[in-house]
Amino acid sequence: MTAQDPANAPASAPRILVVGSGAVGGFYGAKLAEAGAEVSLLCRSDFDVVRTQGLHIDDLGKPRQFIPHRVINDIADYPGWPDYMLVALKALPEIDVATMVAPKMGPTTTILLIQNGIETEIPLAEAFPDNELLSALAFICVSRTAPGCIARTDYGRLAMGRYPNGVSERAQTLGKLFEAAGVPCAVTDNVARARWRKLVWNAPFNPISVLSGGSDTLQMLEHTPTEKLIEAVMWEVLAIAEAAGCPLKPEVVAKNLADTRKMVPYKTSMLLDFEAGRPLEVEAILGNALRRAEALGIAAPHMASLHGLLSLLDANNRR
Amino acid sequence: MTAQDPANAPASAPRILVVGSGAVGGFYGAKLAEAGAEVSLLCRSDFDVVRTQGLHIDDLGKPRQFIPHRVINDIADYPGWPDYMLVALKALPEIDVATMVAPKMGPTTTILLIQNGIETEIPLAEAFPDNELLSALAFICVSRTAPGCIARTDYGRLAMGRYPNGVSERAQTLGKLFEAAGVPCAVTDNVARARWRKLVWNAPFNPISVLSGGSDTLQMLEHTPTEKLIEAVMWEVLAIAEAAGCPLKPEVVAKNLADTRKMVPYKTSMLLDFEAGRPLEVEAILGNALRRAEALGIAAPHMASLHGLLSLLDANNRR
Repeated sequence: MTAQDPANAPASAPRILVVGSGAVGGFYGAKLAEAGAEVSLLCRSDFDVVRTQGLHIDDLGKPRQFIPHRVINDIADYPGWPDYMLVALKALPEIDVATMVAPKMGPTTTILLIQNGIETEIPLAEAFPDNELLSALAFICVSRTAPGCIARTDYGRLAMGRYPNGVSERAQTLGKLFEAAGVPCAVTDNVARARWRKLVWNAPFNPISVLSGGSDTLQMLEHTPTEKLIEAVMWEVLAIAEAAGCPLKPEVVAKNLADTRKMVPYKTSMLLDFEAGRPLEVEAILGNALRRAEALGIAAPHMASLHGLLSLLDANNRR
Repeated sequence: MTAQDPANAPASAPRILVVGSGAVGGFYGAKLAEAGAEVSLLCRSDFDVVRTQGLHIDDLGKPRQFIPHRVINDIADYPGWPDYMLVALKALPEIDVATMVAPKMGPTTTILLIQNGIETEIPLAEAFPDNELLSALAFICVSRTAPGCIARTDYGRLAMGRYPNGVSERAQTLGKLFEAAGVPCAVTDNVARARWRKLVWNAPFNPISVLSGGSDTLQMLEHTPTEKLIEAVMWEVLAIAEAAGCPLKPEVVAKNLADTRKMVPYKTSMLLDFEAGRPLEVEAILGNALRRAEALGIAAPHMASLHGLLSLLDANNRR
């Protein structure tokens, strides 16, 4: 048995510190605690509420309460260092994750980064070359509904792998913990490809939902010029991914379009962020992929158009 | 002396009916009346005010009043037919200009179409193949400030020519009338090229000002990804224009960018329309040019991106 085996709890329960305890971090932290891990939260905005009442989770209609092992608002207050540093912050250029977690990165601390976008792992990999870095994608509809309250309305699965590639014992351990708590977790040996695969959807739908004046998925697909734009962006993502060494099957384009048409029309997470006046993940979703495209000599004029518009809109929105 | 000679007024003053008496139609109608023409207005929204008080014009800070020869709200009330049908309606697919003016298109009536965009002349040329059609571009900052009130804040010049090309006696006559009233009017034998030339500015700046969340000219040019997008769209317009038989000098790209940088930052007319909840000239500015590009086998992915976004945004805005 390893120190990370949940069957060994509480003495050998893995110690997890969740950094960025918004909806995503709070939800997955709660799940890991259910599976027997010792989960602490680093909270900023909702610190007082969460410290006294824990997190209230409306999980697909079922109410749950999560009382974290510790709730802190200064990372220095965490004793020792965690086995896992679960980072679920928005992927924004102004958030320096490496500096934020550095005080509690012990020699055996593994980072679990749950974020959208491409190549957001790089600053962490550079800052902590001797620590294991697990990269994960969350397929989930979850949002903060009030201070200390979050609601999951759909999905929940994770895809996870070691960065830049491969599978490790720690990835397997964490995957089993998530599965034990009812969270499907696909451990992959090529998380970079999984990220490009998810970008096929994110790169068109998230920006276009905002730029077209607040459209849901069905409005975007039913308006022919926009549908064509969505498909054109998807092909550009495939071309960049292939040049970057992560070829995807061409069928993913048709599959993404067909699957989205089948779903109840909904607002993308970027549109919800925009409507709430929050910063947008422009660089993680478009900018990083475009820089990769430029370095590889791949043309992506539709994505460049979205980036030119969305980056200025985001700048205007922050003013 | 011809019947159109203003020196001959009032007996032989040209009879002009202005259709679409918003800011642009009202302003140029007033100027033609100053030069001695008999100018009537077909008004809809401001009919009662304009009929009783005429148009109040704040012309670069100087107040002027324009009492039209006639103010009507039904084109059937115009006696006989005009020498010139001055059409200054927004270029929108739902506005059927040909049907609107048909009741008063006499055998000697010349149309003067003052609109932005590309190929908006086609429906009129097809509906009235035996009437002369003059096509004009207005370089002017003018807006309706209250019912019956308009203000010109900058510019005012016109470029005008016979559609599809050439110069006619009537174009010269009208050009002299405008010049007599202090409106610089360049009569050109290639108005199609003049339209493509103006589109070099309109195709990027108008859509991007709206899509980037409401940006003025300087904000668009100071944000590098947006500046690059503007320039990319300009090169696409040049490529389509050249394939369409209207080659433009490559220098117009740098000149447009430099001239715009020199100006006091301002909001485009499309942004003002958007902010006022008015329909946008998406097809005249982007759609017609893209259809021409497709027919000619020219790629214009940046313009197609803007069109995909702007057409859905406009549709959302009209709901």
